[in-house]
Amino acid sequence: MDHLFKTLKVRADAGVLFVEIDSPPLNMIGPSLVADLVHLIQALDEGTTHRVVVFSSGDREFFANHVDITKVAEYRQEAAVLTGEASLGLLFRRLSTTKAVTIAKISGRTRGAGSEFALACDMRFASRERAIFGQIESGFGVVPGGGAVQHLTRLLGRGRAMEVICSAQDYGADLAERYGWINRALPDTELDAFVNELAYRIARFPLEGLINSKNRINDIALAGVDDYRTDSTLFGAGFTHAETQRRTHLMLDRGLQKQGEFELNLGAAIGTLER
Amino acid sequence: MDHLFKTLKVRADAGVLFVEIDSPPLNMIGPSLVADLVHLIQALDEGTTHRVVVFSSGDREFFANHVDITKVAEYRQEAAVLTGEASLGLLFRRLSTTKAVTIAKISGRTRGAGSEFALACDMRFASRERAIFGQIESGFGVVPGGGAVQHLTRLLGRGRAMEVICSAQDYGADLAERYGWINRALPDTELDAFVNELAYRIARFPLEGLINSKNRINDIALAGVDDYRTDSTLFGAGFTHAETQRRTHLMLDRGLQKQGEFELNLGAAIGTLER
Amino acid sequence: MDHLFKTLKVRADAGVLFVEIDSPPLNMIGPSLVADLVHLIQALDEGTTHRVVVFSSGDREFFANHVDITKVAEYRQEAAVLTGEASLGLLFRRLSTTKAVTIAKISGRTRGAGSEFALACDMRFASRERAIFGQIESGFGVVPGGGAVQHLTRLLGRGRAMEVICSAQDYGADLAERYGWINRALPDTELDAFVNELAYRIARFPLEGLINSKNRINDIALAGVDDYRTDSTLFGAGFTHAETQRRTHLMLDRGLQKQGEFELNLGAAIGTLER
Repeated sequence: MDHLFKTLKVRADAGVLFVEIDSPPLNMIGPSLVADLVHLIQALDEGTTHRVVVFSSGDREFFANHVDITKVAEYRQEAAVLTGEASLGLLFRRLSTTKAVTIAKISGRTRGAGSEFALACDMRFASRERAIFGQIESGFGVVPGGGAVQHLTRLLGRGRAMEVICSAQDYGADLAERYGWINRALPDTELDAFVNELAYRIARFPLEGLINSKNRINDIALAGVDDYRTDSTLFGAGFTHAETQRRTHLMLDRGLQKQGEFELNLGAAIGTLER
Repeated sequence: MDHLFKTLKVRADAGVLFVEIDSPPLNMIGPSLVADLVHLIQALDEGTTHRVVVFSSGDREFFANHVDITKVAEYRQEAAVLTGEASLGLLFRRLSTTKAVTIAKISGRTRGAGSEFALACDMRFASRERAIFGQIESGFGVVPGGGAVQHLTRLLGRGRAMEVICSAQDYGADLAERYGWINRALPDTELDAFVNELAYRIARFPLEGLINSKNRINDIALAGVDDYRTDSTLFGAGFTHAETQRRTHLMLDRGLQKQGEFELNLGAAIGTLER
Repeated sequence: MDHLFKTLKVRADAGVLFVEIDSPPLNMIGPSLVADLVHLIQALDEGTTHRVVVFSSGDREFFANHVDITKVAEYRQEAAVLTGEASLGLLFRRLSTTKAVTIAKISGRTRGAGSEFALACDMRFASRERAIFGQIESGFGVVPGGGAVQHLTRLLGRGRAMEVICSAQDYGADLAERYGWINRALPDTELDAFVNELAYRIARFPLEGLINSKNRINDIALAGVDDYRTDSTLFGAGFTHAETQRRTHLMLDRGLQKQGEFELNLGAAIGTLER
C-alpha cells in the first residue's frame, strides 16, 4: 500500500503495520499528511490484515508536529473527505475507533496537533532522552482543537491538564509518564525492541477480542463527537481574533515552521512573546 | 462464621475481618469460592460487626487467580444466588457496594478474574517483590468479563488500559503502582504491618461516615450494572467461538490450571501461542 | 484591593495576583476568611486585571487548614452571600469556575476544607519537605463536604480516594504527587521560583484562550452543583449525630483548633481516639 501515500512510509509484517511519518519540513501536519491519514484509516477499518499499527517518525528531531498554520482550511478539507466535517479533531477521533490497535512510538518533539495525533493512538511509548511534548495552543490564544482537552483532562486529571494546556510548556518524557500523558518513557536504546515485541505479541491474539476490548474501553474513555466538534470550532474561531493573528505572525517571523532554534525550543520561545 | 466457608479462612478482630483465600489448586475462582463470596457479601451487608475486610491468600504463589475455565456455567450459577444473574462481574460489583471497607493485600500472582476481584475491592496494596498482575483475556480472544474494563479504564486511563488489556502481559507491583492499578507497592516485609495498621485504624472510625463516603465515591467511580452486564455477556459469548476454544484447549494441554511453570509464567506463555 | 480583606494579603504584579492566607490562629477556615474569598472571587470574575492567582500562606506550619468547627453556621452564611446557598463546597466550586487561572503554592499542613480549597484551585504545587495533606472527615464520622469526594475520586481514582478519605491519614507531598492529589512536589528551595515563573508565563498569554480552555476542562472534570450540594448536606447532617459530637468535643479538649502538637500531628492523633 506504500504507493498510496506521499508522507507515510509503510511496511507490513505479521499483522503489524509499521508507519513512518515522513512529511518534511518538520513533520508538520498539513493537507498531504491528513489526506494520507484518511487513506490509512480506511485501510485499517477493514480490520483483518493489520491488527496493530506502530507509528514512528523519519525525522530525528520531530515525531508528529503541530499543524501548518498557513493551511488550516486546506487540511481541514482533506479531513472532511472521511468524516464529512472539516475538522482535524473529528478525524483523529476516527483514528481512535478504527479496528487496529495503534501504538505511537515517540522520539523527538510532538506539539500541538502532533501531540493530539499521539493522544488519538491507543498507546504511547516514548524515548526518555529524546521525546518532548507540548500543547502549545495557549501561546497562540486558542483552545487545543484536535482532542487534547478531551484526552489530557481524562488522562492527567483536572489539575495537570490545566497546567499543561495553560502553560503551553515543553514536557520531557519522564514527566509525561508521571503525568499519565504517555504509557511509559523508555531508554532510547530499548524503545524499538520494546514496542516491536509488544506489537507482534498483540498481533498474535484473536482479532475479535481485541476489537471488542478496544470498543468497550472507548465507550468509557473516548469523548463524544460533540465534544470534539466544540473544541474544533473554538480553535477555528480563535484564529480569527486579532491578538491570535498578531502572535501567529510574530512567531512565523521569528522561525515558526522553519528549521532552526525557534522550532526546536518552541516551548521556551512561546513563553517569551511580548504581550 | 468460619464454618460457613469451604474456601475462605476467616478471623474477626476489633471490627476487622481477615479473610484468607484458600482454594486449592492455584486459588482459581470456581463454584465453591463464588458460593463463599456470596455468603461473605451477605454477612458484610449487615455493616455493623465488620467495618473493614482484609483479603489475603494462603497460597504463596497465587493471590486470587483466574476462573476455572472448565466450570464457567457452574460458578456463574453460584453468583446468581445473590444477584439473580449468572454473572461473576455483577457479583464483584455487589462486593464493591457492600457496607464494609474492603482491602486486598496482594502477594503472588493475580490474573484474569482474580485481578477483577482485587479491582472490586476498595483498596489494593501489594508486595513489591512477589505480586504479579495480569489481565489475560485477550490471550483467549475475549473481553475481560468481570469488571476489569470498567475499573482499569477509569484507574489507568485509556492508553494504559488499552495496553494492559490488549497485551495480556504480566505486570509487577511497581509498574502496577505507577499505572494506578493498585494503591501502593510495599516491601514484602512491611506489607502485613502496613495493612493491619490501616485496617484497625479505619475500623475505629464511625461507621456511618465510612459508608456514606464509600457510597459517594462509588456514585462517581463505580460503573453501572448495565456496563458490567455487557462485559459479562461479551465474555460468555466469546468462549463459544472456535478460535477461543482452540486456544483454551491448547493452553489446558500445556499446563493451564495445573501447578507448574505454565501457570507461574502465564503472562509469557500466553504470548507465544501459535496463531 | 488589599483594604478589602481581613485574612488575605494581596499583591498584584503583571497580571498575577499573589494572595497570602493570613488567618490566625492556624489558618483555619472561618467566617472572615470565607467572606474574603467571596470578595476575591467577585474581583476575579471580572477576568481582565488578574489572569493568574497564586495562593500561598503566611503561616509556616499551615497552608489553608480545616474549618473552625465551632462556626459552621457562620461561615456557611458568609458563603451564601455569593452563591445563595449556605455551603462551603458550592463556594469552592465557584472559585473553580472563576475567570482567573488559580495556583495553590502549598507549604505546611492542609487538611479538611483547607485541602478542599487547594483542590478547588486549578493547579497545586507543594513543598516536598514541608507540605502535608489530610482529608480528616472520617475521623469525625462524616463525609468531606466541600468537594474532596468529587475531586479526589476523579484525580486519584476509586482505590486511592477510598484510602485517603477512609483513612483520614496525613500524606506527604511525594506521595500526594504519586497519587495525583497535586501536580508536583518540588524542593522547598525551588518552589517559589517555579511557581512564579509559571504564573508570569501564563499571565502573558491571551486571556480568551485561557478562559475557554479552563471552561472546556471544567466541563469534563468539575463535578456538577448537585454533587457538591449532596456532599455538603451530608457533611452538615453528620455533625448533628451524637458520635460525631462526642469525637469533636474530645478532640477540642485535646488540642484541636489550638496551637500545639495535636494540630501539628492531627493525622496521627485522629487515629488514636477511643471508639
